[in-house]
Amino acid sequence: VAERPAEFDLIERIRRRAGMRDDVVLGIGDDAALLQVPAGRQLVVAMDTLNSGVHFPVGTAAADIGWKALAVNLSDLAAMGAEPAWCALSLSLPDAGTGWVDGFLDGFSGLAGMHRVALVGGDTTRGPLSVCVTVHGFVEAGRALRRDGARVGDDVWVSGSLGDAAAALSIVTGGSAPRASGKAPVAPGDAASAVAQLRRRLDRPVPRIALGRALAGLANAAIDVSDGLLADLAHIARASGVAACIEVDALPASTALRALFDDGPRRRFQAAGGDDYELCFTAAPGRREAVEAAACATATPATRIGRITEGEGVVVLDRAGAVWRPPRSGWQHFD
Amino acid sequence: VAERPAEFDLIERIRRRAGMRDDVVLGIGDDAALLQVPAGRQLVVAMDTLNSGVHFPVGTAAADIGWKALAVNLSDLAAMGAEPAWCALSLSLPDAGTGWVDGFLDGFSGLAGMHRVALVGGDTTRGPLSVCVTVHGFVEAGRALRRDGARVGDDVWVSGSLGDAAAALSIVTGGSAPRASGKAPVAPGDAASAVAQLRRRLDRPVPRIALGRALAGLANAAIDVSDGLLADLAHIARASGVAACIEVDALPASTALRALFDDGPRRRFQAAGGDDYELCFTAAPGRREAVEAAACATATPATRIGRITEGEGVVVLDRAGAVWRPPRSGWQHFD
Repeated sequence: VAERPAEFDLIERIRRRAGMRDDVVLGIGDDAALLQVPAGRQLVVAMDTLNSGVHFPVGTAAADIGWKALAVNLSDLAAMGAEPAWCALSLSLPDAGTGWVDGFLDGFSGLAGMHRVALVGGDTTRGPLSVCVTVHGFVEAGRALRRDGARVGDDVWVSGSLGDAAAALSIVTGGSAPRASGKAPVAPGDAASAVAQLRRRLDRPVPRIALGRALAGLANAAIDVSDGLLADLAHIARASGVAACIEVDALPASTALRALFDDGPRRRFQAAGGDDYELCFTAAPGRREAVEAAACATATPATRIGRITEGEGVVVLDRAGAVWRPPRSGWQHFD
Repeated sequence: VAERPAEFDLIERIRRRAGMRDDVVLGIGDDAALLQVPAGRQLVVAMDTLNSGVHFPVGTAAADIGWKALAVNLSDLAAMGAEPAWCALSLSLPDAGTGWVDGFLDGFSGLAGMHRVALVGGDTTRGPLSVCVTVHGFVEAGRALRRDGARVGDDVWVSGSLGDAAAALSIVTGGSAPRASGKAPVAPGDAASAVAQLRRRLDRPVPRIALGRALAGLANAAIDVSDGLLADLAHIARASGVAACIEVDALPASTALRALFDDGPRRRFQAAGGDDYELCFTAAPGRREAVEAAACATATPATRIGRITEGEGVVVLDRAGAVWRPPRSGWQHFD
């Protein structure tokens, strides 16, 4: 960790909220951290960066950025069935404002504390606002949830509900007017509350750590839904050498999303939206009760949305059994 | 790792040059990497970011940026006495230019290959040019080189030579004209060659991995010189609850630096410059022969520059025994 005087103050603020664990031999303050991986466990490492205006809207609250930067990384551990342990944080800031950093740490350390994740290192640098996080966790050897384990005949499942974050982003960026057409009108207060619920899904995604742990050794394959269900399920299909067939009407939607959007845009957000951080996973049909028990035990809804088949790619069917395509596929991101 | 189509091409380019190791159970291409830490070893983790215009001059060659981004991280492992194993890379790019990325990988993977470091994960995102690297290594339990182990009476040592990178940066940014005064003139061809040598120290720092490994269990404390010798030695003194006294004339200088700069600016670059990525370490006087043997065995020069004493802070003495201060202390960086 490179330190200069102004950085030193920031590092002190960060260190005070780093959290403690017995397996951290040496944390923030040396050239590197010293850590003890438990015997018999594999180390699981993920790294994701959030850039201003790309991964969160400009003007997002510092606490929300802090939460989300850790959440998207923990979501990767959840998708592996791993137990989180440590993280490192690299924070590029346009200036050394301590108020922003304290707000950031409210979100970051708040989520870290919920999962007993200790912050063990990293750096603070001058530059355009950017947050890079590396998370470390453990998994029992041979029990990790990989993308390449899906088998023909597996059920396809998804946790929670889909589309809220994409709908919120669409509202923020002006691309979608909720309730553009059709359906019964929503009372103004209800609409504002529903929009706030969507926005919270965008700003404060909940990593499905407990469900991922419960699925380790039970599911055959898993991924977290960050790019949109269709894109992420396609990763599982490609890695596993299989195809997936899902029913668009089976995709779970929140009450807020149903209240605010007609079926067409709603289905697009659910199928192709992204930023959901739900788990999409496959499991043998003989494990349905076990999956439902895991979902119940971790208080995480899980919905069967389709099947793994022979072939390649992902097919989406509507209620009538016809092939469904998103009415407008999102523009191709670089990020 | 979040992937979208354009990113997928980049990730494929990166994956092809990621390197292989038996202890990588699952590398690039899933939500996270699965890694096996050897029994009996502690995990050592460091993370450092390079931002354009802050940590390297705008216009620096892509290959040099790739090299340096990994080198500064490996230098942190060297300062812990650790053996490097894996890294993760988060690359923020203004656009998806593959030529730049291939150049970057020439430098990054070239250095990684020299130290058998496998690239196991990370992400590519859109944003201002920024390179964040997390490195992972191993060290035998209880043998890591920490900042807090210096003891009164220890010798203070430094590897290689100091000041070249700071002198090069000063030339690049126009802050210093080499040979501003005094001394015998340098022939123009020799001067150009000497400037190129300094610039190479700035762009291609050499992490002192072999020396760090040889010093594990031998030195009492160590740090890598990234912020400048005085600042970094002060970190050792503070962490160890001791003071350090060094002789400015004992600081090692390259032939190029001596040829290009008079004593005043040269000493400032050596004592306060930064970006050297040499190891500064302390060891008991009884271990002098062992330190010299370690330096010899790893083909890394090591120079005794002073002693650890009681008190606090770092005192620098000139040849006459008077206190020496840098003629102009560099401006306070935020980064």
